[in-house]
Amino acid sequence: MEIVRVVSDLVCTSRVSGLDARSLRVLETSSGGLAVAVDPVGTRPGDWVFTVSGSAARYATGDFDTHTDLTIGGIIDFWEDAGGTRGS
Amino acid sequence: MEIVRVVSDLVCTSRVSGLDARSLRVLETSSGGLAVAVDPVGTRPGDWVFTVSGSAARYATGDFDTHTDLTIGGIIDFWEDAGGTRGS
Amino acid sequence: MEIVRVVSDLVCTSRVSGLDARSLRVLETSSGGLAVAVDPVGTRPGDWVFTVSGSAARYATGDFDTHTDLTIGGIIDFWEDAGGTRGS
Amino acid sequence: MEIVRVVSDLVCTSRVSGLDARSLRVLETSSGGLAVAVDPVGTRPGDWVFTVSGSAARYATGDFDTHTDLTIGGIIDFWEDAGGTRGS
Amino acid sequence: MEIVRVVSDLVCTSRVSGLDARSLRVLETSSGGLAVAVDPVGTRPGDWVFTVSGSAARYATGDFDTHTDLTIGGIIDFWEDAGGTRGS
Repeated sequence: MEIVRVVSDLVCTSRVSGLDARSLRVLETSSGGLAVAVDPVGTRPGDWVFTVSGSAARYATGDFDTHTDLTIGGIIDFWEDAGGTRGS
Repeated sequence: MEIVRVVSDLVCTSRVSGLDARSLRVLETSSGGLAVAVDPVGTRPGDWVFTVSGSAARYATGDFDTHTDLTIGGIIDFWEDAGGTRGS
Repeated sequence: MEIVRVVSDLVCTSRVSGLDARSLRVLETSSGGLAVAVDPVGTRPGDWVFTVSGSAARYATGDFDTHTDLTIGGIIDFWEDAGGTRGS
Repeated sequence: MEIVRVVSDLVCTSRVSGLDARSLRVLETSSGGLAVAVDPVGTRPGDWVFTVSGSAARYATGDFDTHTDLTIGGIIDFWEDAGGTRGS
Repeated sequence: MEIVRVVSDLVCTSRVSGLDARSLRVLETSSGGLAVAVDPVGTRPGDWVFTVSGSAARYATGDFDTHTDLTIGGIIDFWEDAGGTRGS
């Protein structure tokens, strides 16, 4: 699972039926790239979150018929490393 | 899911039976590389789209017997970030 | 699915039973690396092909009991982009 | 499976139900990046471990309904290479 | 499937039950990184092998209940390219 930051909503009217009615978010990855994920948690731009990929992404949405390969798994409160406490 | 741009059709007469009769597109990834995806949405060269990978790619085509690892999931209208509105 | 070029056969006598009697090819990826794939299509060195990865690679061989993560999905005739026609 | 080092716990109150009540760890990968994994083994910061990814990550937790794509598979004692013995 | 070289055994007493009693090898990838794989073939340090990843890695061990994402698929005898014959 990856640590990423929520950038914005994704507006996308023409999509496959397996993603109907799901909230999509644009994410910024740790390498500065962008990715798109289903959001079952309810995040806001700027939140630090972690993502679940692969077949687990479908289960994580709570509905296996959601045809995603990336789902937001949770909002990060903080973590601690040698440099101190980090997080949102 | 990744944000990519449609480049062209892919013409490919000799293929495995699990991809018969499916439209294939050549995509340009964010890193400038090329990828090939099944297109169940109906895209045109130049469209910004997002792709579904892994086992979800088979479900996203609407037919699990389509043996792809990458499927176009939707055409992007736009998204907003700190720099303003972006999209096709 | 990725666009790659066939380099050669792979000779490999000691292998797992799930790959018995399958033709294996060495491929050159777009980044210049090498990969190994099952070939159900019948390719020759120098052919441009696209590959299917993940669990779809097993289905694409026509036999789910083939324990591969990469299978050649088709031989590319050509594709067109802004720079003109490309392909083998 | 990848060789990584445990950095810290991850504190994360708002999460999907498929990850309820599981211990999450922040890991440092060999390239210096960070990842998040479920820990069914009981590790401490500084431990060298290897991780299981993909659908095997769900099985490795001992509970397939744990919706993770990365699970700690074991604590490394040591390995030997040409430069001598390494490990934690 | 990737072409890699076997470096050594991995000694790892504390591990998940889905990897009990399986031989683990440390591998050097083509980019110089390290990976860990289950070895159902019987390899020795220095062997050139190819690896099977993803869900196929579990099948390739001969026992689907082996919770790995990477398994050695075979020992490479040789392959031929424009530069001549290569291999172990």
